[in-house]
Amino acid sequence: MLNVGIIGASGYTGAELARLLCNHPEVNISVATSRQYAGKQLSEIFPSLRDKIDIVCENISPEKLADKADFFFAAVPHKTAMDLVPHLLNKGKKVVDLSADFRIRDVAVYEQWYQPHSSAKLLSDAVYGLPELYREQIKNCSLVANPGCYPTSIILGLAPLLKAGALITDTIIADSKSGTSGAGRVAQTGALFCEVHDGFKPYKVGRAHRHTPEIEQELSLLAGDEIAVSFTPHLLPISRGILSTIYASLSPGFDTSAIYSLYQEQYGPETFVRILPEDVFPATQNVRGSNHCDISVKVDHKTNRVIVMSTIDNVMKGASGQAIQNMNLMCGFDETRGLTSAPLFP
Amino acid sequence: MLNVGIIGASGYTGAELARLLCNHPEVNISVATSRQYAGKQLSEIFPSLRDKIDIVCENISPEKLADKADFFFAAVPHKTAMDLVPHLLNKGKKVVDLSADFRIRDVAVYEQWYQPHSSAKLLSDAVYGLPELYREQIKNCSLVANPGCYPTSIILGLAPLLKAGALITDTIIADSKSGTSGAGRVAQTGALFCEVHDGFKPYKVGRAHRHTPEIEQELSLLAGDEIAVSFTPHLLPISRGILSTIYASLSPGFDTSAIYSLYQEQYGPETFVRILPEDVFPATQNVRGSNHCDISVKVDHKTNRVIVMSTIDNVMKGASGQAIQNMNLMCGFDETRGLTSAPLFP
Amino acid sequence: MLNVGIIGASGYTGAELARLLCNHPEVNISVATSRQYAGKQLSEIFPSLRDKIDIVCENISPEKLADKADFFFAAVPHKTAMDLVPHLLNKGKKVVDLSADFRIRDVAVYEQWYQPHSSAKLLSDAVYGLPELYREQIKNCSLVANPGCYPTSIILGLAPLLKAGALITDTIIADSKSGTSGAGRVAQTGALFCEVHDGFKPYKVGRAHRHTPEIEQELSLLAGDEIAVSFTPHLLPISRGILSTIYASLSPGFDTSAIYSLYQEQYGPETFVRILPEDVFPATQNVRGSNHCDISVKVDHKTNRVIVMSTIDNVMKGASGQAIQNMNLMCGFDETRGLTSAPLFP
Amino acid sequence: MLNVGIIGASGYTGAELARLLCNHPEVNISVATSRQYAGKQLSEIFPSLRDKIDIVCENISPEKLADKADFFFAAVPHKTAMDLVPHLLNKGKKVVDLSADFRIRDVAVYEQWYQPHSSAKLLSDAVYGLPELYREQIKNCSLVANPGCYPTSIILGLAPLLKAGALITDTIIADSKSGTSGAGRVAQTGALFCEVHDGFKPYKVGRAHRHTPEIEQELSLLAGDEIAVSFTPHLLPISRGILSTIYASLSPGFDTSAIYSLYQEQYGPETFVRILPEDVFPATQNVRGSNHCDISVKVDHKTNRVIVMSTIDNVMKGASGQAIQNMNLMCGFDETRGLTSAPLFP
Repeated sequence: MLNVGIIGASGYTGAELARLLCNHPEVNISVATSRQYAGKQLSEIFPSLRDKIDIVCENISPEKLADKADFFFAAVPHKTAMDLVPHLLNKGKKVVDLSADFRIRDVAVYEQWYQPHSSAKLLSDAVYGLPELYREQIKNCSLVANPGCYPTSIILGLAPLLKAGALITDTIIADSKSGTSGAGRVAQTGALFCEVHDGFKPYKVGRAHRHTPEIEQELSLLAGDEIAVSFTPHLLPISRGILSTIYASLSPGFDTSAIYSLYQEQYGPETFVRILPEDVFPATQNVRGSNHCDISVKVDHKTNRVIVMSTIDNVMKGASGQAIQNMNLMCGFDETRGLTSAPLFP
Repeated sequence: MLNVGIIGASGYTGAELARLLCNHPEVNISVATSRQYAGKQLSEIFPSLRDKIDIVCENISPEKLADKADFFFAAVPHKTAMDLVPHLLNKGKKVVDLSADFRIRDVAVYEQWYQPHSSAKLLSDAVYGLPELYREQIKNCSLVANPGCYPTSIILGLAPLLKAGALITDTIIADSKSGTSGAGRVAQTGALFCEVHDGFKPYKVGRAHRHTPEIEQELSLLAGDEIAVSFTPHLLPISRGILSTIYASLSPGFDTSAIYSLYQEQYGPETFVRILPEDVFPATQNVRGSNHCDISVKVDHKTNRVIVMSTIDNVMKGASGQAIQNMNLMCGFDETRGLTSAPLFP
Repeated sequence: MLNVGIIGASGYTGAELARLLCNHPEVNISVATSRQYAGKQLSEIFPSLRDKIDIVCENISPEKLADKADFFFAAVPHKTAMDLVPHLLNKGKKVVDLSADFRIRDVAVYEQWYQPHSSAKLLSDAVYGLPELYREQIKNCSLVANPGCYPTSIILGLAPLLKAGALITDTIIADSKSGTSGAGRVAQTGALFCEVHDGFKPYKVGRAHRHTPEIEQELSLLAGDEIAVSFTPHLLPISRGILSTIYASLSPGFDTSAIYSLYQEQYGPETFVRILPEDVFPATQNVRGSNHCDISVKVDHKTNRVIVMSTIDNVMKGASGQAIQNMNLMCGFDETRGLTSAPLFP
Repeated sequence: MLNVGIIGASGYTGAELARLLCNHPEVNISVATSRQYAGKQLSEIFPSLRDKIDIVCENISPEKLADKADFFFAAVPHKTAMDLVPHLLNKGKKVVDLSADFRIRDVAVYEQWYQPHSSAKLLSDAVYGLPELYREQIKNCSLVANPGCYPTSIILGLAPLLKAGALITDTIIADSKSGTSGAGRVAQTGALFCEVHDGFKPYKVGRAHRHTPEIEQELSLLAGDEIAVSFTPHLLPISRGILSTIYASLSPGFDTSAIYSLYQEQYGPETFVRILPEDVFPATQNVRGSNHCDISVKVDHKTNRVIVMSTIDNVMKGASGQAIQNMNLMCGFDETRGLTSAPLFP
């Protein structure tokens, strides 16, 4: 049994890690941290976990923390993560970091969007944790930068097209919609039930959302070319789920059948990516609670655009589910271990 | 007091007409029709209207119907409307038709998207009922084709830019999201609570939705040029509300300040269009139950795109509220009469 | 035009007062206060009110405040209200207080459930603002204690039965369910969208909710007898609406027809109370956004119990709508002025 | 591997059986039936199941059906079930019937609430499938009548008290609230999103709901006495979840501590029943997607009443989860096999 630690267990991604890990046959949760709820049973904070997990949240120094487990999930905000992770790596532990701190390969870009980086030298060691694209590197690394939720949906949606040169790359628009769990479990007026329920709105429009550089970095790498995207996030009155509707103009020579071949080739063997038949469109409710990414593609011949629709559960494939998928790879477990539950519908 | 008739009173748009008209100081609802609920009090079908309205739904021939009121709202499906409207006009009545039957000016286009047109010669008499663009024509006509809900949000959103030549017209993408009332009050599995709740999905992607030709017709007229748009509708787990996020590349010479001037010029005097300051974004919950259209505009300088966000209550400005606004104009009432309630929030 | 002030304009009840008053033909909002948002346009805090109201929130001393209007709504928390109201009354102003501070007639009971009372001598002047029961007193007073939301639904539901001695008074159970706006617009984890959405739960079970003494006081007065009730509040994943399901054993001699007569007698002339026919049950969505209270009654002959179901919009008849109804009475306006909009459905 | 058949796979309980069974290590789904969707892949009807299950729905005679599996779940409406089940039993198959057809032990009572019974002689063989109360009988039977959703929540909630004689049995009131999936996947106006969303209402009030005799039968058996309850169902705007708030007067001599001992004694060893500490109340969202029943108890000393709150996921412990728990018992598998996922929150 692998002893794992959840750093930041009292947020939604921390709770999701606990929910999944308590049924994972290869691991044991040996430590869970929370500043706000130190001394409390995790199942008291999240009563859904009652009888499923028996662990008290601790507020503990990074040094002591490192001795408490062999593998760590850092589910804390950016900045906190970068200060913490080196302590764990120094003691030979493996880490999946769910924050943004090790996702951006260019430290200048990171510092432009976030703040000064205290562990910049680790950036070159970190692997971007999208197993469908970087599986082998993940298997052999000690630090995974777990992708952002929006980026996961967009990058998986576009990868086959960009790798094949099927898109005119300066035409990419990603109109993304996210459930409210993406805002975290922080008390704030804007996330109150009455503000979100029965409503819908965009936010951080026009290169204002911090996932922009992450999306552009990964799309650029796939295309072998510098890409700028128009990315617009919106807030959905649902708990879980992201759906990105992505538009781009097609390069000459790609029709529906050629495009579907690209997706089959890329994702045919993948357990967690489901390519839907033409004119069957994805829905967040069909991936709820699962680690799947459902993708559908439609060509609009009149405008010569392709429309890619990609949906994930933002707490699962967009965060904690993908983190465990990465852990499975890093530790030599079956990649799907602990992640096989079918989506919850209705 | 003007005697008005609601044809098709048992759908959501019919009920909304009743809700608004029962407080309208200039009118009296003299007849309401419903095939399915003939003989029933309208307030029995919609208990929210108890004590507010006292009228029994009738199933009645078009000929007899014409004598029962001076002004009619046709809130019946397309095809039914085109067969009915001529009977009313022939007797000198005025009509606002909420179906698609008189919206498309080119009968060939109509017949390609719908079915053969039985009253094609009326198409040239009908006025497209978007008061902010066609106010004078509406005042002087007998037949208004009330715009579709998606088209209303998109056309109002783009009009100032298209009229000024600010857009490269083959780059327009409209990513629209609608509440479920747009699907009507018809028993169907796909509109069940458990199918829609806590979920989100696109539908009719890729020139498959019948609002496409209506949107393209009106945008083309505004631009003085043939325009094709990529229009993608999505289904939101809310009752009321449409929000369209619209992308287009800017023509040279238009910056944020120039763009805002265009919107101020076009909509400054309008009661029902509210232009939001830069970086304040619209939300469906802020127009709920009102006849407003809230619009915000953002320029993404890096990609040279403008992002227009436009929201309405699809049952109000997207259907019944706009229909009453049209009636007010056609009958010489104050344009805002019966439509002054502030949005319901939360 | 009457100049009115909204004290505590940035909460949900404050916003609702503004929404209603901006369309009220007899009043002008001359002042609005908010500590947190002082200096901000009210329509910036609540963008739904854009173009409907033009007033900047102020943080102002009670003394100065009194000069700014002729009539005040106190929509601030208890304790704050009791300290403020005397200043307004001293200057001859009329006040509707939406807090609990003047609802409990026995100061000892108040202090047991809340805290020491700083204005206890005003308790005897205050009138409990349920117009359907205390209309004449309200017309002639300067201080109305606006009823709590749960109490309004329960008291209106039981009044005809208690006045007629139809109930065995120690058997009353009120199982009440409220929308989340009742929790106010305060940032707290328990009211976050993800905590409330797609869920349901009881809270403050077993004489723990502060509305208990208010309910018991008013029911006891109606019955002419000391009454203890079992009152259980629950949290609904809706924004607006309270529905109370109330159980009690019937005194001998009361059957369905006798009971319906009592309700007709009590509420027949009332605009805002709608008695539903037998086997038609109330629904929160049928009173949404309106000042109505819908009531239905069912006798279970086998157990000799009556089941009263009573629903209101907690922000309207349960707070701000009722407050304006009280203002109308206190100022000699038509009682329904500004409150005639039909419920918003769907 | 046990070959199991799902009869009626295209409803919500059928889909839930498929979701759970596709991950159950001891079984293989060998047949799935649907009249409406015969010839369709089950994963086409429920796209959430894509790649999780590969079976085509059939419309098949009971005789042929019996040969297709060793164990059957009948997830069809009452009446259909009673006609079908004898064919399966005659061929030596075991059956869990999720309909009401074999729940009522007294055929006269059944026929009063439903319709004539075609298989009345099977009633004495059928075991009421509440494992926490009838585990040994379930292990040794061939036909389990899977309990109704409301009854499960109420019976589990009251069993310890009734067995101990702690309640005055003519005072029991069960105020129950259910998510909309309980209405099934049938196209009907009343279950449309716009009718249910943002609303709440009671239905079938006053001994009108067919679960009444089932509840009374089981409570009477537990108490050893004829019991009549007041049972009021309500419709919640959530997909999954039932919460019953149950009121009863206490017999002399039972205080909080004695009551908690009764619950610990009864449910201490149970995996799926979680007794919450005093003043921690259950919430439907804490059992979502799991087979748990969460129960909390509160004594109101002033009125001498106990308030029992009991919540389940109506599709799981209230239907398909409990059905699989029963199958596990009937087939000698570990009782929790396939049912160990933690609840999905948020």
